[in-house]
Amino acid sequence: MTRNPETTPTAEQPIASAATRTPDTASEDEYAKLIEQFGAEPVTDDQLDRLPDHPAIRRRTFYAGRDVDRYLDAAESGEPHAIVTGVGPSGPLHLGHVLPLYVAKRFQDETGATVYLPFSDDEKLLSRDLSFEEIGEYTRENLRDVLAVGFDPDRTRIVIDTADADVIYPVAVTLAERLTPATVDAAYGEQANVGTAFYPAVQSTHLLLPQLVSGHQPTLVPIAADQDPHVRVARDLADGEALPVDKPGALLGRFLPGLDGPGKMSSSDDAPTISLTDDRETVAETVREHAYTGGRVTIEEHRDRGGDPAVDVPFQYLRYLFEPDDDELTRIEHAYRDGDLLSGELKELAIGRIGDFLESHQHRREGLGSLADELPQYQLTATERRRALDAAGVPTVP
Amino acid sequence: MTRNPETTPTAEQPIASAATRTPDTASEDEYAKLIEQFGAEPVTDDQLDRLPDHPAIRRRTFYAGRDVDRYLDAAESGEPHAIVTGVGPSGPLHLGHVLPLYVAKRFQDETGATVYLPFSDDEKLLSRDLSFEEIGEYTRENLRDVLAVGFDPDRTRIVIDTADADVIYPVAVTLAERLTPATVDAAYGEQANVGTAFYPAVQSTHLLLPQLVSGHQPTLVPIAADQDPHVRVARDLADGEALPVDKPGALLGRFLPGLDGPGKMSSSDDAPTISLTDDRETVAETVREHAYTGGRVTIEEHRDRGGDPAVDVPFQYLRYLFEPDDDELTRIEHAYRDGDLLSGELKELAIGRIGDFLESHQHRREGLGSLADELPQYQLTATERRRALDAAGVPTVP
Repeated sequence: MTRNPETTPTAEQPIASAATRTPDTASEDEYAKLIEQFGAEPVTDDQLDRLPDHPAIRRRTFYAGRDVDRYLDAAESGEPHAIVTGVGPSGPLHLGHVLPLYVAKRFQDETGATVYLPFSDDEKLLSRDLSFEEIGEYTRENLRDVLAVGFDPDRTRIVIDTADADVIYPVAVTLAERLTPATVDAAYGEQANVGTAFYPAVQSTHLLLPQLVSGHQPTLVPIAADQDPHVRVARDLADGEALPVDKPGALLGRFLPGLDGPGKMSSSDDAPTISLTDDRETVAETVREHAYTGGRVTIEEHRDRGGDPAVDVPFQYLRYLFEPDDDELTRIEHAYRDGDLLSGELKELAIGRIGDFLESHQHRREGLGSLADELPQYQLTATERRRALDAAGVPTVP
Repeated sequence: MTRNPETTPTAEQPIASAATRTPDTASEDEYAKLIEQFGAEPVTDDQLDRLPDHPAIRRRTFYAGRDVDRYLDAAESGEPHAIVTGVGPSGPLHLGHVLPLYVAKRFQDETGATVYLPFSDDEKLLSRDLSFEEIGEYTRENLRDVLAVGFDPDRTRIVIDTADADVIYPVAVTLAERLTPATVDAAYGEQANVGTAFYPAVQSTHLLLPQLVSGHQPTLVPIAADQDPHVRVARDLADGEALPVDKPGALLGRFLPGLDGPGKMSSSDDAPTISLTDDRETVAETVREHAYTGGRVTIEEHRDRGGDPAVDVPFQYLRYLFEPDDDELTRIEHAYRDGDLLSGELKELAIGRIGDFLESHQHRREGLGSLADELPQYQLTATERRRALDAAGVPTVP
């Protein structure tokens, strides 16, 4: 049982959740495994200097990568380069989803990267207990959040698997030809249906699409570490002469922890989350009530022994995204560790920053026109569709 | 080794191919199995009376079916009803492919059936050692043959899996959700790649498409018996409330035997075949040189003991399609069995009839405009596409 920590703790009220759950260190092993077993490389200091300046990059939330230097070489020399980061429309977008989107935006702002944003509505039907009607509603809502990020329509393409099946399916077929059920089972486990078995070919299509549309170019996929199998499958399929593409690279990140403790924030579980549409009051209530903290059980103990920012979710939110100033973050960290800052106070800091962020995001979202008006400028043109199909060798009929 | 039978046999020249191969009676077992084990029903005399008058139906080349009466009830009462018969563009169409097409045409002529003609170019890429470029070329050639059959554009829809992926893929996804890899492996054996694993969902989409576009209606699939697993999978997927469709029915046929003997005529093997584009001289040469006959080794023995029309390929071609007159066919059969008609003479009869048929087909083919001009009137309209997607529950975005 979790006792609800209060905002202004007293000696009678705990300042930390008394959840018996402890941080899931298994995920640290998972993070390390990508480097030790699966050929990802740690992000180097040199790469950090060259990557766009963003809190999640600077603070090594993105801790490993694949072919990052090739991408940076192209970005620095003004050659074409692309970012791909997807959206799975299975619920309202929440803070965990917005991180890669805003990182992609930063890449676009700093070096003019083309950004591809595939929506895997097919996969959500196949893998979740959701109807296409529900998924369609989430797709429309998620699209508005994606558009609110403010991508440059000239350099951004939004692809929806069902609505853009005219391109996605034929290209995926050319990849599926070289993907065995055994390979898919090895990468993802046994498949529940033949749609999910086929889907890795669709996902690989997403990662290769910028090159199919616009020719060879380094493509970087900023993605949570558990999504690395997708990148590995796509890299295998990009290898060789079958398609005019290079292997896509990756920038592999740790998850934004769930509000109620370490682990992946999911829009589909019942876990408490902060949606992109939450107002300040809702954010405050959610954080106050549910955020897992690194505080001590009593104020006295906290003042005496200090809190643990490494497991404190409000602190981690500030660190991942919401406190851009490194000096201020360090000040907060030390104050918390020294016991000068209470969990409730730290929560209020996070609530303020998250509220500011969401207010700004929501302001842009509300300023959007209808999807019917906004979306077309981000969709593949007829010429781009034909170029992708031609590059994959799909014949024109008649 | 097969010695080449001659047109005008002499005592020194064999009148029958001396192939050691004997008719494959295993296929008769396969035919019977659909009825004994898989729930197909023999075509009844009453159904024969009600089905369109076509040699292949009258002579029970189509020997079994599923839900044939439901189809006939709709056809007779003027309610909507549809035929689906597909084309796999993996080579030039030959005589074996044209039978179901002309049967479909007869259904359309007699009762106004809507005819759907899906082209499975995706499946051919996935299952054959062919490039998409080659498949595209075959698709264009096969399309011209299909158009030459003379279907009514108002009641006919040609669907090409890659070119019509905007409809086919999203609908297939809704079916794939309910199709496990184990079910596909049980129906078709272990799958070489995830594309062929997914493909049964695409094939089922073909068989349900007339109902998705135009509402519940009996759908009959005239198909070679070995394709019955496709119908069974589609019937399973059509069962229940998931989609507004009834189970598609089937009319299950024996194969037109290969020229060089019993078994399935295939466009992909090296077996000798008669293409729809062959001229009379080529047909004559091919039949004279390669046709497996039921004749005896010498004229004397043939005159004495008679030939066997049951295994004689030229006779079977006449029986399946090319000799419409039953009395004439019976006369030929008796003359051959009695030894009055030699194998070479029977070959010449078949050559004449096949030549007439092809000349007429080719004449219509040559009269066609370009594919770009002809095909659009047979393609799904935007309204029909949207109706199919709506019926399958695929959301509109935005």
